[in-house]
Amino acid sequence: MAGSTTPALVAAVSAAGAFGSLGAGYLEPQAILEQVGQVRATTDRPFGINLFVLPDEFSPDMTAVARARELLDALMEREGLEVRTALPARWAPRFSEQLAALREARPAAASFTFDLLTTEQVLELKRLDIMVIGNATSVAEARAWAERGADAVCVQGAEAGGHRGTFMHAPEEAMIGLFALIPLVARAVDIPVIAAGGIMDGRGILAAEVLGAAASQLGTAFLSCPEASAAPAWKRDLPNVEAHRVASIRSFSGRAARGLRNHYVVVMEAAADELPPYPILNALTAPLRRAAAQAGRGDLLSEWCGQAAAMTRPLPAGELVALLMDEYDSAARNAG
Amino acid sequence: MAGSTTPALVAAVSAAGAFGSLGAGYLEPQAILEQVGQVRATTDRPFGINLFVLPDEFSPDMTAVARARELLDALMEREGLEVRTALPARWAPRFSEQLAALREARPAAASFTFDLLTTEQVLELKRLDIMVIGNATSVAEARAWAERGADAVCVQGAEAGGHRGTFMHAPEEAMIGLFALIPLVARAVDIPVIAAGGIMDGRGILAAEVLGAAASQLGTAFLSCPEASAAPAWKRDLPNVEAHRVASIRSFSGRAARGLRNHYVVVMEAAADELPPYPILNALTAPLRRAAAQAGRGDLLSEWCGQAAAMTRPLPAGELVALLMDEYDSAARNAG
Repeated sequence: MAGSTTPALVAAVSAAGAFGSLGAGYLEPQAILEQVGQVRATTDRPFGINLFVLPDEFSPDMTAVARARELLDALMEREGLEVRTALPARWAPRFSEQLAALREARPAAASFTFDLLTTEQVLELKRLDIMVIGNATSVAEARAWAERGADAVCVQGAEAGGHRGTFMHAPEEAMIGLFALIPLVARAVDIPVIAAGGIMDGRGILAAEVLGAAASQLGTAFLSCPEASAAPAWKRDLPNVEAHRVASIRSFSGRAARGLRNHYVVVMEAAADELPPYPILNALTAPLRRAAAQAGRGDLLSEWCGQAAAMTRPLPAGELVALLMDEYDSAARNAG
Repeated sequence: MAGSTTPALVAAVSAAGAFGSLGAGYLEPQAILEQVGQVRATTDRPFGINLFVLPDEFSPDMTAVARARELLDALMEREGLEVRTALPARWAPRFSEQLAALREARPAAASFTFDLLTTEQVLELKRLDIMVIGNATSVAEARAWAERGADAVCVQGAEAGGHRGTFMHAPEEAMIGLFALIPLVARAVDIPVIAAGGIMDGRGILAAEVLGAAASQLGTAFLSCPEASAAPAWKRDLPNVEAHRVASIRSFSGRAARGLRNHYVVVMEAAADELPPYPILNALTAPLRRAAAQAGRGDLLSEWCGQAAAMTRPLPAGELVALLMDEYDSAARNAG
């Protein structure tokens, strides 16, 4: 997940024989190149980069921005956090510049969420031998990526933690569980299907394969690894997460994302409809989230996670990859 | 699913070597006994009965009832259906009498949804050698059934069609996908876990087993069998159902249920909050649903289905069971 992956995590996963992916959606172009350099200083194994497909510029409704700032400042004051919102220099990194950095970095694969690339962008990456993976949350979205020429499609089940990649439907329309989504997409497109959402162990990887997936993508499962940069307060809370408290949340970033329905989420619920969209709100809440992390206040953090978060295991990433492979082999022997 | 199962369907499924279950939630006690007699006239294989756990009596808010009748009558007039709502003799069959009929019928297993049985009710069924299966949509609900003494728990994933069995949470809180729900419940309770929701073929049955389920329960997969009593208009539409149009719907019965977001659902959405709860609204919409079925108006029917409805196969139930078993064996061979 963007914001929780680190070069150390990506390198450890790839070095252990899986395929690490750097969640670079929040990174400026220079940071993408630096972090890729750090991965390559540790391992020569292949890895991927994930980006959010966004416009380069945003023209937010400044009345909504002012209202959000008021709400957030009042909340921080009430909660005793010594920080206030500010207008950022820019709302998000420029996507065209992130994409240029990605092309320069030439990872083995690049995955994209929030929207489609153009056919020309897909072809340009493929010319550079970068495998293109589109993210989809419905059959229609998977078909759209296949038509754009993607090499594979990653299907994000309703179980998945963090931001929803949905781009053709309202977020609540594309909450399709993996048991339905994998076989529906596998029969609809000719490219390999990668499964994401709720997969926490080797049994999950085998189950996804049985349903028609060529591979699995795990995010939450790596969240409590020492290499992941999730806030310590959040790592500590993960084993106690109850799945029915893991909700679709818009009030942290302005875009639906799955995470724990904590104090912040409950407080902001009443105002959810007046809050500005992604990435505006995401930029505005950044100071609060940073201050909450420093204060060990998990109840005010964006505690992203999939529905099976309680199954995370706080192992070094390389050990976790080895365990996942063992579990997969053992499950396959039992199934046969 | 209650309302779509028939004695012929249950008998065909059990005769083919699976375990048929009669959805008896809407049946008066006498009808339960008659339908059980019809199953037993066809097969001596074991089968189950499912009931909705409800109070015996209801005292609805008659203002909400009047408002719902106005809305429904206006809709039927607009749509040209020659029928109007009426106050039913009773809102639902009396649960205590359904349970007495079930005890008399002595099926091999009885499953219960919408709420818990008392410990005494569970013990009484077990004394009669009736296996008790509780329905759960969260870890907490599964634990509650285990504590009541259930022999097994059926976990209903967010993918599942028809009524949600949720009884400890708001419906939207217990939309947990099977990839998360099976392993979470399997490690939380000591009784066998049965998986339901989005399982449409033998691969799905194996995948659920890999994740920790002892068995799978399929509903939507049997909806287009000739033995199922789903409306012909609905059977015809099933192969074209898009998963992102399969929503959680309260406007047919007063209780969240998964089905197609069709014309009726869209029209009633604005009034959803004023509509009375289950089973009041269910009784009030019955004439409309019957008339819509007779008129071939799928767009006004409760088109219940799971998210993978497009994968239904219109085979005789016995042939479908044989195919599921073949697919399971083939998937297990490939996995091993």
